Amino acid sequence: MTLLNTKTQSFEFTEPLSLSSGKSLSHYQLLVETYGELNASKSNAILICHALNASHHVAGVSPDSEDIGWWDNMVGPGKPVDTNQFFVIGINNLGSCFGSTGPMSINPETNKPYGSTFPVVTVEDWVRTQARVADRFGINAFAAVMGGSLGGMQSIAWGLLFPERVLNCIVIASSANLSAQNIAFNEVARNAIMSDPDFHKGDFYEFNVIPRRGLRVARMVGHITYLSDDDMAEKFGRELRRATGLSKDYLYSFETEFEVESYLRYQGDKFADYFDANTYLLITRALDYFDPAKSCGGDLSKAFEKILAKFLVVSFSTDWRFAPERSREIVKALLDNKHPVSYAEIDAPHGHDAFLLDDMRYHGVVRSYMDGILRDIERI
Amino acid sequence: MTLLNTKTQSFEFTEPLSLSSGKSLSHYQLLVETYGELNASKSNAILICHALNASHHVAGVSPDSEDIGWWDNMVGPGKPVDTNQFFVIGINNLGSCFGSTGPMSINPETNKPYGSTFPVVTVEDWVRTQARVADRFGINAFAAVMGGSLGGMQSIAWGLLFPERVLNCIVIASSANLSAQNIAFNEVARNAIMSDPDFHKGDFYEFNVIPRRGLRVARMVGHITYLSDDDMAEKFGRELRRATGLSKDYLYSFETEFEVESYLRYQGDKFADYFDANTYLLITRALDYFDPAKSCGGDLSKAFEKILAKFLVVSFSTDWRFAPERSREIVKALLDNKHPVSYAEIDAPHGHDAFLLDDMRYHGVVRSYMDGILRDIERI
Repeated sequence: MTLLNTKTQSFEFTEPLSLSSGKSLSHYQLLVETYGELNASKSNAILICHALNASHHVAGVSPDSEDIGWWDNMVGPGKPVDTNQFFVIGINNLGSCFGSTGPMSINPETNKPYGSTFPVVTVEDWVRTQARVADRFGINAFAAVMGGSLGGMQSIAWGLLFPERVLNCIVIASSANLSAQNIAFNEVARNAIMSDPDFHKGDFYEFNVIPRRGLRVARMVGHITYLSDDDMAEKFGRELRRATGLSKDYLYSFETEFEVESYLRYQGDKFADYFDANTYLLITRALDYFDPAKSCGGDLSKAFEKILAKFLVVSFSTDWRFAPERSREIVKALLDNKHPVSYAEIDAPHGHDAFLLDDMRYHGVVRSYMDGILRDIERI
Repeated sequence: MTLLNTKTQSFEFTEPLSLSSGKSLSHYQLLVETYGELNASKSNAILICHALNASHHVAGVSPDSEDIGWWDNMVGPGKPVDTNQFFVIGINNLGSCFGSTGPMSINPETNKPYGSTFPVVTVEDWVRTQARVADRFGINAFAAVMGGSLGGMQSIAWGLLFPERVLNCIVIASSANLSAQNIAFNEVARNAIMSDPDFHKGDFYEFNVIPRRGLRVARMVGHITYLSDDDMAEKFGRELRRATGLSKDYLYSFETEFEVESYLRYQGDKFADYFDANTYLLITRALDYFDPAKSCGGDLSKAFEKILAKFLVVSFSTDWRFAPERSREIVKALLDNKHPVSYAEIDAPHGHDAFLLDDMRYHGVVRSYMDGILRDIERI
């Protein structure tokens, strides 16, 4: 298998960006990573959109940190999204905290971090910035825009905002909007962050603190919703966290007692070390707000009338964050428009996280869909 | 319908109580409320056990606060648990915050609130204190011990600890132990409380503060798990919280935007006003620890060998906190012992909260089971 050649670039944009909120950003940069080669006709470009805590670093190994990309099992030479065939682009979303302009960045007008003054951004705002990146590469239309979870929402938004600029939308473990329960979990997470005294209304950078406690709780809540009940039972059950040979009686305290507590605390701590609290708020709000049917009185089929791209929709049987029925709503709205859509519901035990994991049937579905895209490109 | 005659009493216990943890309490009081009349043979007593945030005040109207009891639709004259026929007892559990001895109480040895020094208590500890209350009334055996959720666990524990002292165990929307996911949610809630700087390691009373932020987040998380996804969708959907006539565009902020956020914040605030943070920790830990199969290597059927009481087990189709399959585990373990058990799975949309709500089929099942108990009593 050939080694993956990754290339990280920073793009500066000085043309003001009008945001959904009515505000605008006069200047921003986006961090971009690419894999494979753009062909002469620039027809083999795939945009990979990330979800909450991921970044432009989709695949391969970072030259600086040795981190493996978040979708490395999906993207690479010979992988389902084959970088020997496709030119793949990962972009760190505006407002995120991995190199693109976000709340941690210095606002050139004040010479201080944006903090609480960073504008609320939407999925549609991201898509507009991604289109500007495509312009820089001279890419007129993406062969596919692809993502899981919030990434899938960006893929849908591409189909709606730039129907002529995307040939295929690949929407995995996603939904056409959040349910009340989804919003509720986001609200709990935000509340934990915003009520942390170290949050300082979003301007904690100036105080040299981070709202660790809030971030930790936010991540713990999130993590529960990424795994299925069965998967947690399988992974942790009611196992106590004890060295072998020690008593299996309870500690009768509020210290870490069960394996699942230990796991969640670890995940929470790790997250608080690397993720920006304001970015967490921004990204969860973008999730809450995404609702393409809203302007059509809730009629998703009507909203989808303008779509031209073909769709692949994938869901996972035990995903209760974005359950298969939410994917079927997308499929139904496409079929209502007699629109070409392939749909796969993968029987997988790992809940929402399944979209990030290696699963033969899941990867087989994507691989065969990508083969079809390749045949289409070659016919052009 | 006759008015419900409620009687609140405080019982002092000075005989030391040995706890599951190995610690002991030398002195404590329990607040008890009763309804109806104990018959001459003392055979018509029903113990109602409460869940996380409830109390001894099961039914009727409090003379002081005008609060209606938490299970008033279930218990009263002519109701499924008919106080014209039965003598019903509600006890505020040890460690709770509604009048029984708990972390807020003054420790007579230090003249300060117990706070962090209050011992961890278990479901079994509660059952032992409840047996002492039965002794005070001269009740040798309860006609039934009944509860929902954590209350149902107490009912199971009665069947195991005092097989001769309970004729029927009524176990509603409960489970023979918590799943990893259940423990995970409890851990998030506890983490939110314990990481609140106003918690002061449990001794916040001395600082004249309460860990409001943590309690609020804890309650919000809990509340999501009490409702079904469908129920939340039905109640709130994606409705925005706006006065009629105002714009339906988003606010583009992190303020309360959706109805479901407003609801959760309200529930969180209300809870923080009346519930004790240490009690929250204690009661969720009692939930985590309950696991009668633990001493039998996880074999619930073996654990249930000693049970003599008949069982009624009830679950609700949309309860994902304690799903019907968890109730069926209890039923199976009883049947493995060829033990009499009635089981009803109620098709209800309201998730875990259904056990507190008025539902004809559910109440019909309980009413008819109670009629059977009454016939048994009359035969004695």
